[in-house]
Amino acid sequence: LSRAKLPFVSTQDQAASEQWINALGQAMPTETIVRLQDLSEQERARCDVAIVANPDPALLRLLPNLKWVHSVWAGVDRMLAELGATDLNIVRLVDPQLAQTMAEAVLAWTLYLHRDMPTYLAQQKLGLWHAHDYIAPQDKFVGVMGMGALGQAAASKLLQANFKVGGWSRTHSQLNGVQSFTGVDGLVQMLEQTDFLICLLPLTPDTRGLLNSAMMAHLPTRASIINFARGAILIDADLRAALDAGALKHAVLDVFEHEPLAPDSWHWRHERVTVLPHCSGPTSLETASAIVAQNISRFRANGTLPTTVDLKRGY
Amino acid sequence: LSRAKLPFVSTQDQAASEQWINALGQAMPTETIVRLQDLSEQERARCDVAIVANPDPALLRLLPNLKWVHSVWAGVDRMLAELGATDLNIVRLVDPQLAQTMAEAVLAWTLYLHRDMPTYLAQQKLGLWHAHDYIAPQDKFVGVMGMGALGQAAASKLLQANFKVGGWSRTHSQLNGVQSFTGVDGLVQMLEQTDFLICLLPLTPDTRGLLNSAMMAHLPTRASIINFARGAILIDADLRAALDAGALKHAVLDVFEHEPLAPDSWHWRHERVTVLPHCSGPTSLETASAIVAQNISRFRANGTLPTTVDLKRGY
Repeated sequence: LSRAKLPFVSTQDQAASEQWINALGQAMPTETIVRLQDLSEQERARCDVAIVANPDPALLRLLPNLKWVHSVWAGVDRMLAELGATDLNIVRLVDPQLAQTMAEAVLAWTLYLHRDMPTYLAQQKLGLWHAHDYIAPQDKFVGVMGMGALGQAAASKLLQANFKVGGWSRTHSQLNGVQSFTGVDGLVQMLEQTDFLICLLPLTPDTRGLLNSAMMAHLPTRASIINFARGAILIDADLRAALDAGALKHAVLDVFEHEPLAPDSWHWRHERVTVLPHCSGPTSLETASAIVAQNISRFRANGTLPTTVDLKRGY
Repeated sequence: LSRAKLPFVSTQDQAASEQWINALGQAMPTETIVRLQDLSEQERARCDVAIVANPDPALLRLLPNLKWVHSVWAGVDRMLAELGATDLNIVRLVDPQLAQTMAEAVLAWTLYLHRDMPTYLAQQKLGLWHAHDYIAPQDKFVGVMGMGALGQAAASKLLQANFKVGGWSRTHSQLNGVQSFTGVDGLVQMLEQTDFLICLLPLTPDTRGLLNSAMMAHLPTRASIINFARGAILIDADLRAALDAGALKHAVLDVFEHEPLAPDSWHWRHERVTVLPHCSGPTSLETASAIVAQNISRFRANGTLPTTVDLKRGY
């Protein structure tokens, strides 16, 4: 009996699926990776594992003996919302390369704010020559919300750039030189001293709408926000009100509740907002496929699953 | 006989001079620092050293027994041009803090280009949602022109950010992990592989107009230039022609032949140019004064001068 085929389940268009199937196939030459749609009922019955990218729950139900799925992405909030109540074992991508790329984006856009680029770009439009006082990174505090793989990589890079860095997370983080905050009181304490707030939290029932008016009011008026996590963590109307009132300096937004961002959205034209098209942490097909391959191969060899998503916690 | 007073000689306005005199005074409590204009002829005759910031040569000639001057700035090109033929010993500021701040600016604006910020900012104006392919810093080459204190600090930060880094300088530079280039052939070789060209050269007869059409033609069309050194190193009309022809992607310019940049200058409105108001390497009054103080104190103690500017070389 030959080895069961390995289905790829996704709501992406066919071209995107083909790209994944090719990359995954190169990383796993002994596996036969095909779209779920291309498997016979008999073949489906033999599948105990699938690789997924925003899978349609109805398609997953076509795999009666499925034990677990491996997502090629780090965020599984959308998948969990669509699946509803489930006892499926879900593995999300934990890719050190993604953490590095995301940390680089955090550093890049923190420096964008730190070196006053939005101000200088606005001055250029006005033909205005005016250098602003320079404040050293040693005298600026970056608050990182979420201290998982991405948050820790970002915090390290920010420390290396000489910023003061704090990290807020569910449980205390232990990163040399990073002040650790937990709980609502801890978050308030961190926000009160923050110049640059970096959101790298997973979207869960606990974090949805966490950054609302009341919470943002704890930030100093000199503070700016960078959201590289999920749009729904930040209450959009509250952000706009804070920016309009001058209670916040700037927001760099790479994620939105509905993507792509609608053409008539207020964000595009707000002078205190930088809009990015979900480009801060691009997944590398190559490194992601290598990680998935390693996890699948370990499972084939001895039935071991990687750490699975805590369905109650949501990540 | 009391110690000779220490004159401060500058063409800056009085407020700026007062700021320097205050900061220098705090760093040297045993010295009496005053504007040259406030010294009697007798007091002037006793001065063997002066602190300068773009000094008027006519004023310097009022100090008949002057042995050396200490500039509070790193660049002495303007001073040398105004002094003409001279045998004055000139010491320029070599401030590790300035090197750090400048290196941070190099990293910030290199990441600005690397993470496609000019493109995303332009897309925002158009309401365009489109993420571009990401190329890792390991696959991009940054060429640094000038490997003195500033260039070395910048190269180190760029290495830390995982870029491939090359350095071009008069003599071979020895920085671990940085490819060293010298001479015109070396410059051409470096330019041919450069994604981001960083200019940190001193302005001298050898570097004036160095970046002309012929030299820029060696850069790939994907390349961008960051000039944080002196405007006159880069031939302005040649840069414009290269940008207009699509032979270069972008230029970040912090320095111009005439500053402040004239309101009708083409740079302000060019979509491939980012104009900065000479803000990349702001001098810190505090650290600069501390360094000048140390050098003056050593001279008072045993007559030793710090390394002086090589007048023939120009820095």
